[in-house]
Amino acid sequence: MRTDIRPITTDSIDVTGGFWYEKQKLIREISMDNVYKRFYETGRFDAFKFNWKEGDKNKPHVYWDSDVAKWIEAVGYISEKHSVPHLEAIADEVIDHIERNRMADGYFNSYFGHLEPEARFTRRDDHELYCLGHLIEAAIAYKRGTGKDKLLKMMIEYADLVYRVFYVEKSAVFLTPGHEEIELALVKLYRETGDTKYLELSLYFVDTRGTDPIRDEISRVDPLNFQSHLPVRRQTTAEGHSVRFGYLFCAVADLAKECGDKELFNTAKEVFNNIAKRRIYVTGAIGQNPVGEAFSGDYDLPNQSAYAETCATLSIALFARRMSLIDPKSIYADIAEKAIYNAFISGISLDGRSFFYSNMQENDLQARHRKYSSRNNVFFPADTRAEVFNTSCCPPNVVRAVSSIQDFQYSADKDTVFCHQYFDTRACFDGKTITMTTEYPYDGAVKIGYEGALTRLALRIPSWCKSYTILKNNLPAEGVITDGYFYLEIASGDEILLNLDMPIRFLEAHPKIRVDCGKIAVTRGPIIFCIEGADNDYPLGDIRLDKNAEFKLSKDPALGVPVLDTVGFIRDWEEEVLYGDEVKFKEVPVRLIPYLAFANRGSTDMVVWTMKK
Amino acid sequence: MRTDIRPITTDSIDVTGGFWYEKQKLIREISMDNVYKRFYETGRFDAFKFNWKEGDKNKPHVYWDSDVAKWIEAVGYISEKHSVPHLEAIADEVIDHIERNRMADGYFNSYFGHLEPEARFTRRDDHELYCLGHLIEAAIAYKRGTGKDKLLKMMIEYADLVYRVFYVEKSAVFLTPGHEEIELALVKLYRETGDTKYLELSLYFVDTRGTDPIRDEISRVDPLNFQSHLPVRRQTTAEGHSVRFGYLFCAVADLAKECGDKELFNTAKEVFNNIAKRRIYVTGAIGQNPVGEAFSGDYDLPNQSAYAETCATLSIALFARRMSLIDPKSIYADIAEKAIYNAFISGISLDGRSFFYSNMQENDLQARHRKYSSRNNVFFPADTRAEVFNTSCCPPNVVRAVSSIQDFQYSADKDTVFCHQYFDTRACFDGKTITMTTEYPYDGAVKIGYEGALTRLALRIPSWCKSYTILKNNLPAEGVITDGYFYLEIASGDEILLNLDMPIRFLEAHPKIRVDCGKIAVTRGPIIFCIEGADNDYPLGDIRLDKNAEFKLSKDPALGVPVLDTVGFIRDWEEEVLYGDEVKFKEVPVRLIPYLAFANRGSTDMVVWTMKK
Repeated sequence: MRTDIRPITTDSIDVTGGFWYEKQKLIREISMDNVYKRFYETGRFDAFKFNWKEGDKNKPHVYWDSDVAKWIEAVGYISEKHSVPHLEAIADEVIDHIERNRMADGYFNSYFGHLEPEARFTRRDDHELYCLGHLIEAAIAYKRGTGKDKLLKMMIEYADLVYRVFYVEKSAVFLTPGHEEIELALVKLYRETGDTKYLELSLYFVDTRGTDPIRDEISRVDPLNFQSHLPVRRQTTAEGHSVRFGYLFCAVADLAKECGDKELFNTAKEVFNNIAKRRIYVTGAIGQNPVGEAFSGDYDLPNQSAYAETCATLSIALFARRMSLIDPKSIYADIAEKAIYNAFISGISLDGRSFFYSNMQENDLQARHRKYSSRNNVFFPADTRAEVFNTSCCPPNVVRAVSSIQDFQYSADKDTVFCHQYFDTRACFDGKTITMTTEYPYDGAVKIGYEGALTRLALRIPSWCKSYTILKNNLPAEGVITDGYFYLEIASGDEILLNLDMPIRFLEAHPKIRVDCGKIAVTRGPIIFCIEGADNDYPLGDIRLDKNAEFKLSKDPALGVPVLDTVGFIRDWEEEVLYGDEVKFKEVPVRLIPYLAFANRGSTDMVVWTMKK
Repeated sequence: MRTDIRPITTDSIDVTGGFWYEKQKLIREISMDNVYKRFYETGRFDAFKFNWKEGDKNKPHVYWDSDVAKWIEAVGYISEKHSVPHLEAIADEVIDHIERNRMADGYFNSYFGHLEPEARFTRRDDHELYCLGHLIEAAIAYKRGTGKDKLLKMMIEYADLVYRVFYVEKSAVFLTPGHEEIELALVKLYRETGDTKYLELSLYFVDTRGTDPIRDEISRVDPLNFQSHLPVRRQTTAEGHSVRFGYLFCAVADLAKECGDKELFNTAKEVFNNIAKRRIYVTGAIGQNPVGEAFSGDYDLPNQSAYAETCATLSIALFARRMSLIDPKSIYADIAEKAIYNAFISGISLDGRSFFYSNMQENDLQARHRKYSSRNNVFFPADTRAEVFNTSCCPPNVVRAVSSIQDFQYSADKDTVFCHQYFDTRACFDGKTITMTTEYPYDGAVKIGYEGALTRLALRIPSWCKSYTILKNNLPAEGVITDGYFYLEIASGDEILLNLDMPIRFLEAHPKIRVDCGKIAVTRGPIIFCIEGADNDYPLGDIRLDKNAEFKLSKDPALGVPVLDTVGFIRDWEEEVLYGDEVKFKEVPVRLIPYLAFANRGSTDMVVWTMKK
């Protein structure tokens, strides 16, 4: 375990072009306003005014503060780089409402504080500390982006109250929150303030979880769903509600680093491996079971009914990012990459206006629109995105994460700069300037310019890449591969050209994933492709692709993404035959599009997994 | 439509050897006693005594009469051929209780008559007329088998009451029964007594169904589940509760024949085709959706969660049997054959003691025993048979159907004897004697001896058979194929040798059945094979079979059925890799067993659909 590697955060990195430049622009110019409008219309902003009364529509909900908090956090990140006064004005108004309506002892929650003040800290599943966690994250980002620290000061007072009630007095009805998030936020607050009591409280929450069968359970659900089935240090598999899990283990990784706690590190590593090797979709999505929004078990990765929440996929990326700081092996950034370019970013429409909560891994319109003579017993996630949900955690999570995506790119110790992700950016830290130019993830060429003192650069060689070249000043670079990173020395003025070959690959799944046996997923670089009915007018489940066929890459002008065209095969079947053995094939043109671009042309069939000829 | 073809019933046919001889012996010697004991223990027999009182265990249930009725019906069939005094004595006692406890006007139901007499004929879904239907069938079989007509006389009085209440007065709360069965029983009663009012009442029930939105619905479920969504003559697809559907359409086919009603014939044909071409499992099972025990829609044939009730599969066989009387085309007997040799007979264990309600089309122990952090959202039918169920319709249905299986074999008009199924039997009717010797379904050789007047014999050439020979007195027989039957003339003393080639076939499913795309089912003759974990110790979902490999047929001494041994391939996969593209295969021995013999060695993995190399 390493404890000396620092994250390089958004403030040190400008996104200057390419994939994320476009996404951040979209978020800034379209999504932020749109999410605000939908949240305004649904009462989420007005809830901070504490003037809702019985009979009014849009009754405040216990988790609404977190929705607005994530939006404010995004304003913070955006403000670091751009002037967005109209967004700042909205955030400032919310912060003023908080100031006006918080309790004398610092407590704030727009539901409890206003409607059930006597019930505060009594219901484990009612998201108070989850909301506080997001408000802390928002406060830190907002202060960094705008320089305004009013929210941060208030949240420090609130965190101090929580420290006293939960840690010193232990006077709350429950011991640890039902929905984790506060744990990782407290580590952030510790890093921001240097005050160790937040670290202490975070560690207390993590170590108390699953230790008290009375005060640490919620009767109506299995404690497994809240990661309270075992003390955290004894957990070895990813269990329960997938977002809660992801946030908890972000904190576990953070605490391992900050406390140098090897046991927590080993726990985090084992649980991470359980996901990476048994419980993650090929698109990087996690959380297989819609019931409980939860993990199910090893090798259980149903496609049609996948839960695969946008927030859950983000949470595994965030967890992976933290792991790469304490264990600089490429598996973490590989998983983070798979998540951010596929089942996370698929969570937002290409026009920036609407969102997926669940990200389908397959859509079968025939099954979806089947007439059932009783209620259907199959879960079908929505197959078109919506602008807002009743539980609308995903939209603000997307805007805050995209706006701070450069967090995933670098980390550094005193000798080495680790480059985990290839983004088109300009980074300045520790007197070093790194300029990266690339069309990644659609192209494997990465040009790196460097100014600064002699240092070591560790470039991740993605696990999908079987062939690459690295030139330093046009000559083959000398270096060594360790744990999936290519380490080389760089001096001021050096130019590095990394070229990662991106052939078409046919990925197969572990034989124990029965639904994917005999099937392949087409990938190129980190991008997983899918096949949509919108492009292909025949039963999608019956396509066979030929590995040796030509795959033509071009940009689809309507979708604005690279697509693949090839020739595939389907069975030339006699319609009236249900079962037969006289099987002939016919050729059909097949278009594949990146999974991240699916479901942008209305409700349509889709498969990620197809067969090979 | 033909109306001149008569069924040849059990009384004319003795099963003399082979597959069904063994099954009938098992039923007679083991299953009848065992079903009786379980029904006795659970109070089903005592319910007829009308002495249950509050606080006693085993409170009578509205549908229990039907369970006992089917058992008595089986006693009737068995008694035609064998002396079973101890079974008769039990049946006689039940009949005496009915005599003692029925109402003055002929009404009998061991629940309503005893516990809620004032509520009779008020609750559409409470199975009164369903019970009467089964009692009528029992009464007819029991009279034919034993000569005792007490039950039949009582059921005639009860049927007369129903005729008055439902047809003349229309004074019941509902118009047509929630669970169909009475309709087909009334046609049987008409055939037995010659009294046309039973035919009239049956036709009335069929034609009234789905016409009155108030009195012909049950509020708590969709009318579709009870085939009441449309007038029956306007139905074109198989909908709703699959057993109710099957029984209803038996009556529709019967009425088409008895009334020469072409519209009903066309309705039955269209609905039958909907099943045969879009809604039946390769094993002959019907009813895909466990919710509502119902059909779902075209090409929706999930394997793991298949509902596929034993009774439903029997009901499609019974419906098919009736269709072949009015439309002598082989599709009907083909479907009946598929059902009786696969997903119907799989409903009873090889030892005759226990039963399946749902017949799985796939078992995935990994999925079944997965730990879920919330309740599982997948339906897993039981994967081991039970001796009795709370709703225990299937066990007595198996015993009565196997005991009268020869019903499926022949029909006749004045010129032709149709042979629909190849059973080892001796049949005597219309002065003709047909002796058939065969090891069918495990062997395609059928030897037929004939004594009687010159006649035409129509031998079904099963749709699975692509090559056959027919010898008459050792010379190639002359004849014509029409609608899947080979018509030839036979005279007294003729010996016919039919030989149906039974190569191993790899059946594929329609491309719209997405779950089966890329997969094959191994079949030989009418037998569908499956692969069980008990014989094959590796992930069953990953097997590939080679059509050109040797398939060695031998009899498994433990199971007592023919099995197939071959060499297949599975991927040689590195355990720690979840997704990869370096795929190697390794050879594995693969044993396949008939589907009908699955799940006789405890809970074990099973697949019907596998891949081809």
